[in-house]
Amino acid sequence: MQVEVPGIQANVPGVHPAWLPPDAFRAAGTRRVLVLADDSEVAGTVRAEVADACERHGGAVVAPGAAGDLVLALSTAGDLPPAVQASRGQEPGPEGFVLGRRDGVTVVLADHPAGLLYGWFEVVRRGAAAFGEDWPAEVHRPALRRRMLDHWDNIDVHPVMGQVERGYSGGSIFWRDGVPHEDLTRVRAYGRLLAATGVNAVAINNVNVHATEARLLTDRLAEVAAIAAELRPYGIRVHLSVNFASPIALGGLDSADPLDEGVRAWWARTTERVYETIPDFGGYVVKADSEGQPGPFAYGRSHADGANMLADALAPHGGVVHWRAFVYDHRQDWRDRSTDRARAAHDHFAPLDGLFRDNAILQVKYGPMDFQPREPISPVIAAMPATRLAVELQVTQEYTGQQRHVCYLGPMWSEVLGFRFWGPGERTVAEVAARGGLVAVSNVGDDPYWTGHPLAQANLYAFGRLAWAPDLDPAAILDEWIGLTFPGGDDLVRGTLHEIMDGSWATYERYTAPLGVGFMVRPGHHYGPDVDGYEYTPWGTYHFADRDGVGVDRTRATGTGYTGQYPAPWSEVYESRSECPDELLLFFHHVPYQHVLQSGTTVIQHIYDTHFAGAEEAAGMRLAWEKLAGSVDPALYARVRERLDEQVRCAEEWRDQVNTYFLRKSGVPDAHGRRIY
Amino acid sequence: MQVEVPGIQANVPGVHPAWLPPDAFRAAGTRRVLVLADDSEVAGTVRAEVADACERHGGAVVAPGAAGDLVLALSTAGDLPPAVQASRGQEPGPEGFVLGRRDGVTVVLADHPAGLLYGWFEVVRRGAAAFGEDWPAEVHRPALRRRMLDHWDNIDVHPVMGQVERGYSGGSIFWRDGVPHEDLTRVRAYGRLLAATGVNAVAINNVNVHATEARLLTDRLAEVAAIAAELRPYGIRVHLSVNFASPIALGGLDSADPLDEGVRAWWARTTERVYETIPDFGGYVVKADSEGQPGPFAYGRSHADGANMLADALAPHGGVVHWRAFVYDHRQDWRDRSTDRARAAHDHFAPLDGLFRDNAILQVKYGPMDFQPREPISPVIAAMPATRLAVELQVTQEYTGQQRHVCYLGPMWSEVLGFRFWGPGERTVAEVAARGGLVAVSNVGDDPYWTGHPLAQANLYAFGRLAWAPDLDPAAILDEWIGLTFPGGDDLVRGTLHEIMDGSWATYERYTAPLGVGFMVRPGHHYGPDVDGYEYTPWGTYHFADRDGVGVDRTRATGTGYTGQYPAPWSEVYESRSECPDELLLFFHHVPYQHVLQSGTTVIQHIYDTHFAGAEEAAGMRLAWEKLAGSVDPALYARVRERLDEQVRCAEEWRDQVNTYFLRKSGVPDAHGRRIY
Repeated sequence: MQVEVPGIQANVPGVHPAWLPPDAFRAAGTRRVLVLADDSEVAGTVRAEVADACERHGGAVVAPGAAGDLVLALSTAGDLPPAVQASRGQEPGPEGFVLGRRDGVTVVLADHPAGLLYGWFEVVRRGAAAFGEDWPAEVHRPALRRRMLDHWDNIDVHPVMGQVERGYSGGSIFWRDGVPHEDLTRVRAYGRLLAATGVNAVAINNVNVHATEARLLTDRLAEVAAIAAELRPYGIRVHLSVNFASPIALGGLDSADPLDEGVRAWWARTTERVYETIPDFGGYVVKADSEGQPGPFAYGRSHADGANMLADALAPHGGVVHWRAFVYDHRQDWRDRSTDRARAAHDHFAPLDGLFRDNAILQVKYGPMDFQPREPISPVIAAMPATRLAVELQVTQEYTGQQRHVCYLGPMWSEVLGFRFWGPGERTVAEVAARGGLVAVSNVGDDPYWTGHPLAQANLYAFGRLAWAPDLDPAAILDEWIGLTFPGGDDLVRGTLHEIMDGSWATYERYTAPLGVGFMVRPGHHYGPDVDGYEYTPWGTYHFADRDGVGVDRTRATGTGYTGQYPAPWSEVYESRSECPDELLLFFHHVPYQHVLQSGTTVIQHIYDTHFAGAEEAAGMRLAWEKLAGSVDPALYARVRERLDEQVRCAEEWRDQVNTYFLRKSGVPDAHGRRIY
Repeated sequence: MQVEVPGIQANVPGVHPAWLPPDAFRAAGTRRVLVLADDSEVAGTVRAEVADACERHGGAVVAPGAAGDLVLALSTAGDLPPAVQASRGQEPGPEGFVLGRRDGVTVVLADHPAGLLYGWFEVVRRGAAAFGEDWPAEVHRPALRRRMLDHWDNIDVHPVMGQVERGYSGGSIFWRDGVPHEDLTRVRAYGRLLAATGVNAVAINNVNVHATEARLLTDRLAEVAAIAAELRPYGIRVHLSVNFASPIALGGLDSADPLDEGVRAWWARTTERVYETIPDFGGYVVKADSEGQPGPFAYGRSHADGANMLADALAPHGGVVHWRAFVYDHRQDWRDRSTDRARAAHDHFAPLDGLFRDNAILQVKYGPMDFQPREPISPVIAAMPATRLAVELQVTQEYTGQQRHVCYLGPMWSEVLGFRFWGPGERTVAEVAARGGLVAVSNVGDDPYWTGHPLAQANLYAFGRLAWAPDLDPAAILDEWIGLTFPGGDDLVRGTLHEIMDGSWATYERYTAPLGVGFMVRPGHHYGPDVDGYEYTPWGTYHFADRDGVGVDRTRATGTGYTGQYPAPWSEVYESRSECPDELLLFFHHVPYQHVLQSGTTVIQHIYDTHFAGAEEAAGMRLAWEKLAGSVDPALYARVRERLDEQVRCAEEWRDQVNTYFLRKSGVPDAHGRRIY
């Protein structure tokens, strides 16, 4: 059944098509389509996409002058038909497009080929609705400039972290056994999936840059170029994680001091060679002075010095450096309650606001800790108005079930992006990050379903969509994803997937660490419960539970003062035990077990209630999924079913360990007399 | 300075000589020595030893008929001088010897060459004292028939366990990079060290037999033969750990059922081939139906069936099978308080008493759990009078500081071996195990000091000595070891080493898990504290601490009934909360924190007191060691000093984590107001 059109990787044999199965193209593919574009590579992709869809579904590619049901046109093309003329003058910008329907012709008009590509996928997403009644032209522009996935892929299999660090979807799609995959078809298919969501940048290797991977910058650059060649047709630029100490390790210098002229010259020369090979190279990603990685501190320089050195090397070529703000003391003494890891990024970076070059992007994790299911939003994002900031999310489910649990993260990211530091009516996180971007650690590997858990595809999809349009409703995004991924799906499929996935993040939160306190996971791999697992470690991730209470006092009044890193009103809201949102109470306050939440229940009873409820909801997900036997592909059904078994088991383990731990400690029985061990 | 005598591996370049430095041979090596023996390989070793010592130290080997200061004679040799005649008629047995001094001649008389070798090393051990006043002939016979070290060495480096499982001394002395060491000099030197302590058997590979190592039984048998050739001159027989499923994995059969005739024939044939290659091969070691290893349960057969099948294959050749009794459910549900891992070995094996062949030796860990610093003695040892039992110890310090901590285990083993199940005056553990043997997991690797921590050599030494003579005073053994290892050592050296080492096991016990409750170590690697690390796992190792109390109720009255596995009087003593020895209280009872121990202090105060004391004692060890700067070899000094730093750090970590954990849980403050976090 597969139709091969050169240049299009509609499907990869043996690999699930995710949200681009052939059937998703039916509505557009049955039309007469006119493409008016230039001879750029991306425009070529649009032509090939259209030709492929039409060939599959009986539509036709029509020549200029002929009448079309769908016109995809560059504003610079000649001979624009009348239906298109009406959409002109809207300035959609470098990646945007104008979409409208007039006189029975659906029109996508863009100033640049990338906009045409995104417009095409918008038409695909709308399906039949794109060809109904007329509607006035709408302008679509991405809200965030760069929409980027970071791969934590290694070339070599790391003895502890595996090939893909925190990857839960098999090996890397770029490398295997220390060398690139001979066939990069899958990389191209990946680029196509990403383009359909709006992603425009991919960093291909782990931010923990080991010896082998460091060489991608120099003698293994051809591998980067080969990957770039596969992604370029989809408007995606390739970025590279580099090791700050590369001038020493690769260049044979005796320093990596960012103010050393020799070091700066080495980066300039090296970067120039990168651009000679990959003219549209995106730039560098750097994790410096973090968890053992080298950085500018070794030379008494600031992170601005470090980032600016790389920014200067990249600037002549139009590249950017993403400099990660994930800097903290990972050798903390657990005895010392005055040190607070949550404070670290703000303490390090806020004083540097205004000192970064314009092509140096400070990449800040959404929360102050490390991708927990619930954290407050990092105050660094509010603290650096004169710096280009990118917000970093984690699509890979390191702390949210590792693609063994269903956990649809759209609602969480929507909350993050819509958070207003300065109160109602003020700017959102997405607006603050507009000039920088939205970045996420990818959840993709060489697994047949791309993401291990088939339903985890929805997270990848939602990331791209929210990066383009942060105000989209996550349930609506999920609905889009269902429609595309299960194009023949009836109401049962759609309804059941919503039933399982809409609230899955909330469910996951219920059965894991309570009230924002975080962690309580097994050290090292971070899967499954271990309440005290990080309590006496150097990692700075504590809950301080004793027989009387639990939580971390981060107030200015009596704690670490972290609340003071927020602007008003949040600096006051978080400081107040009575006003602090329940879901973050234990992140900000150490309270007695009998403290009454805003919800009206005590902390200890809340712990019991949510853990019983969460585990029950997980069981409910499995029951719901069983309704779909026979309605979805049997292999996909089985894969999800098997993972739901594990989710139910693990949720019960969380329930029982957390409840038992707190019963043993507090001595307070469950008000409803349920079984605690 | 090295004198090379063929056949003797007095020293290996770059490797510490342990307790056989050349100077240890001074007293014997300055004498005129007469050897009257046969042409066996072991007798050849004695001759070479004597010649080497005399050449180094100015003595002489004299010919029969000439007068000697020291005579080493086989009773079967002709022309025994008069001094020897007086020692005859004592029947020292296959490995024993008669030692006396009469008319200024020191005489060793043995019935077999092995006895001569052990007698020689006894003379060396006594040093000048062997040549003083006359003393009447003493008979020396080993108390335990087989004195054996088990190596948990792998050929390949295991991804998690490394090359030597639970090894803390570098790589294997047998294999490197998947092949045998080209030069087996070090194996020979190892054999010599062991012979000097009385060890007569070595199992060379890990009881967890992985795919590569399984083949030592068949196509890689030449490697076993090469190792056997190095150890044979020192009276040591080689044993092999085998995989119970070998008939399937290596033989291509479709079963490993011990009652299947094809399977039995395969083992018989395979074993015959082993003996064709290694005529004095010792036998097999098997870990079956344990922690994932295959075993007879898969076929509905008993462990007696499994062991007997191998015993039958070995019997025609004089070999034995060591069948490990370490069988328990390692997938236990922590919620289920009725299952008790401590019960498992007795539950499995006691009913099988009398069903094992005479050459099937049931190898029982000294305690019911897993080599903790403090456990009660395994009741299996008392429960199987009709079975040959071997007791298994752990020289490698898996749970006792991993050769980063000084922990001299002689006192612990002495307690174990002297324990009387049936009360005062009744038989000891050593007596029960006399026909079986004493086995220990070795602590040796390719480290220059053999054992990582130089002072951990004393454990290897003490093991051999106690296996020979369990009633030796462990402090006296330590004194021997000091005298041999530091032959130029003055009173400062001797006194300081005693100061550091005599009580080091007690110190280790003080700063780790309290009152016999065990574990509280970091899961996986088992180093350092993690009070709840195993509390909610499937491993069956719990402490059940809550806000009111701690400990495992193993009584018959209200607990798991484990106390009932002991004969009287211990079944009663352990059952009673007031009579149970303090050091085992939490192993047998769950008690309130305010429970008063026999020592007069409360459980909670005992926890605080011992942890403060233990950490302080560790610091005292380091201080004591500093007195030896300049008195011992600088490299050895530095190695020990560095490890003492780690011990002090780790002891403080134990102190603070354990004390904090119990303060947070109990709410009871330290009576002395010391700092708890």
